Amino acid sequence: MTDRIREFLRNRRDDGPCLVVDLDVVRNNYLAFAHALPDTRVFYAVKANPAPEVLSLLASLGSCFDTASVAEAEMALAAGASPDRISFGNTIKKERDIARAFALGIRLYAVDCEAEVEKVARAAPGSRVFCRILCDGAGAEWPLSRKFGCDPSLAVSVLEHAHRLGLEAYGVSFHVGSQQRNTGAWDQALASSAEIFRQCAERGIGLSMVNLGGGFPAKYLNDIPAVEAYGASILDSLRTHFGNAIPETIIEPGRGMVGNAGMIEAEVVLVSRKSEADELRWVYLDIGKFGGLAETMDEAIRYPIHTERDGDTVEDCILAGPTCDSADVLYEKTPYPLPVSLAIGDKVLIEGAGAYTTTYSAVAFNGFPPLKSYHI
Amino acid sequence: MTDRIREFLRNRRDDGPCLVVDLDVVRNNYLAFAHALPDTRVFYAVKANPAPEVLSLLASLGSCFDTASVAEAEMALAAGASPDRISFGNTIKKERDIARAFALGIRLYAVDCEAEVEKVARAAPGSRVFCRILCDGAGAEWPLSRKFGCDPSLAVSVLEHAHRLGLEAYGVSFHVGSQQRNTGAWDQALASSAEIFRQCAERGIGLSMVNLGGGFPAKYLNDIPAVEAYGASILDSLRTHFGNAIPETIIEPGRGMVGNAGMIEAEVVLVSRKSEADELRWVYLDIGKFGGLAETMDEAIRYPIHTERDGDTVEDCILAGPTCDSADVLYEKTPYPLPVSLAIGDKVLIEGAGAYTTTYSAVAFNGFPPLKSYHI
Repeated sequence: MTDRIREFLRNRRDDGPCLVVDLDVVRNNYLAFAHALPDTRVFYAVKANPAPEVLSLLASLGSCFDTASVAEAEMALAAGASPDRISFGNTIKKERDIARAFALGIRLYAVDCEAEVEKVARAAPGSRVFCRILCDGAGAEWPLSRKFGCDPSLAVSVLEHAHRLGLEAYGVSFHVGSQQRNTGAWDQALASSAEIFRQCAERGIGLSMVNLGGGFPAKYLNDIPAVEAYGASILDSLRTHFGNAIPETIIEPGRGMVGNAGMIEAEVVLVSRKSEADELRWVYLDIGKFGGLAETMDEAIRYPIHTERDGDTVEDCILAGPTCDSADVLYEKTPYPLPVSLAIGDKVLIEGAGAYTTTYSAVAFNGFPPLKSYHI
Repeated sequence: MTDRIREFLRNRRDDGPCLVVDLDVVRNNYLAFAHALPDTRVFYAVKANPAPEVLSLLASLGSCFDTASVAEAEMALAAGASPDRISFGNTIKKERDIARAFALGIRLYAVDCEAEVEKVARAAPGSRVFCRILCDGAGAEWPLSRKFGCDPSLAVSVLEHAHRLGLEAYGVSFHVGSQQRNTGAWDQALASSAEIFRQCAERGIGLSMVNLGGGFPAKYLNDIPAVEAYGASILDSLRTHFGNAIPETIIEPGRGMVGNAGMIEAEVVLVSRKSEADELRWVYLDIGKFGGLAETMDEAIRYPIHTERDGDTVEDCILAGPTCDSADVLYEKTPYPLPVSLAIGDKVLIEGAGAYTTTYSAVAFNGFPPLKSYHI
């Protein structure tokens, strides 16, 4: 909670749950990344929070942008980023979307298989491509599936294919898993990357870049290492695996850039028990899985929640959203301790909500509007 | 697939995934419910698909409407339903939303605890309330959590509280779980309902109505019993537990009303393998969990998928959506058999998609627009 958010909420007059993002925090996060990894270009992961205010601020600070779709690329351009500061980082692209991005001037594309290389070669000839490799994601709170990336053993032939088709085989990318709390998690993937560099060099292909991805955590309930610790550990691994030939590097923070900058204000709609003997209260908020808190799926992200009654005795409760969907329960497997005195109508503040909330909102599920947001 | 949908898709010129709903199928479904349960009023669960075309059709056929929010109630009114044909069926309501619904003329509210009764008594004085009870949901493909409803042991005191506060204690509701394939699933809840009727009568409170909820399935991959079989089984249970004093009944079909009326047309964006030795292909579509197929969560709903290559040899694959979210995988635990010849750019048809798709779409996740829909 920052003073600016507190002041904003004090003066707020409209109704319903809302996200408030303090842009000063985003600025500080950007500067911390730039300071911790001074030789690394920052490609902000637009999907984490594509608010124009966030994009404009980051563009003015010199950030580059990792985009998942043509719409996101257009947003980054509208915010003032030039096309050479934008990557099309989704490995799953329609060929006509690649052509649209190419027409916008974008020349940097992610791939993870030969079929995707062929699309880029046809629709964005001569562009740079980096090959995403699989990475096990151990230590991440929101570990990634095998959806993106190929086995490192395949990456060399994918990059060779790109080279053969007139693209610039530019480098390798990976993602160590979102909300990664192990600062050493990059080491193994960097070892694989160095091996791919070596094998490509043997084939006469000089790779230039390692995309270190995202994974930098936001603070939720547990303490997290400082950005500096990640920077130091990554530099160590780069030196270990690449020796004196340290490649160009980029990072793609999303959650780490905006997560801690935002706070959701919500309201307690109901507190009840299911029977006289029920041990746990049910607390229902006016925001749930379909209104912006989708990352509570499988109770993966556990947000810190504050109330005006903090300090009173707490007791565990089951926390749920307001929709008629029975899956719209936030925390049940691990109940959430909240003040016993919590009452219907109380406001609650959900911290660390600056990333992956507004855009995850359902468009109109149960007639509820998407999450409102203010970027101040 | 109906002829009308086939014809519409043949002439379709716009791009991207879309849902097409055949209103003739919705009409037939409504008539089947009305025929199978002739003495039961149908309250369509608006949340399943709130398209104005669906609501107007059902209003013209005489349907009533189960709404989850004031916005849904307003949509039902706009479609031509009078307020006495609308229930506010969400047990989790802000008091000011109850007041808004009351101002719209709505006089029927769901409750499951005394605190909610008190809100209704203050904001909608004199209205009818029904108490939702818990029900185990065995046999349902999308079983409900304990989120809604109280233990039957508590229902009598909840209804007594309503009576004491000047509300009309109108009846009992329950929900046997969505996509319920056991036609006998209503029996136990009807036994509990009859017991609540009896205990309320002993206290001088005459209940009138049993809300049988939804749960009527749509056809996905497996065959389902006909609506008539549900009607017959429910009538049997009503006679068993209520004898000659059969109460007024209502049903709240959502999926059963619109699920089989809609089909999503999507496109294959990428087909790839993660390594030379990978046994399973990954097939990526331009629609996923965040674009309308949220009910694939935990692989709960398994949609029938057709391609232009049906009849070719099939092989299992992992099916995933187009976003940069690693959770956006549709079927992986139980891979999905699709033609080996399936290629990038192929269209796929996802059946049984008329319910719980459009409104589940994320508002702009990864920059992708919400699911388009056409109701023909």
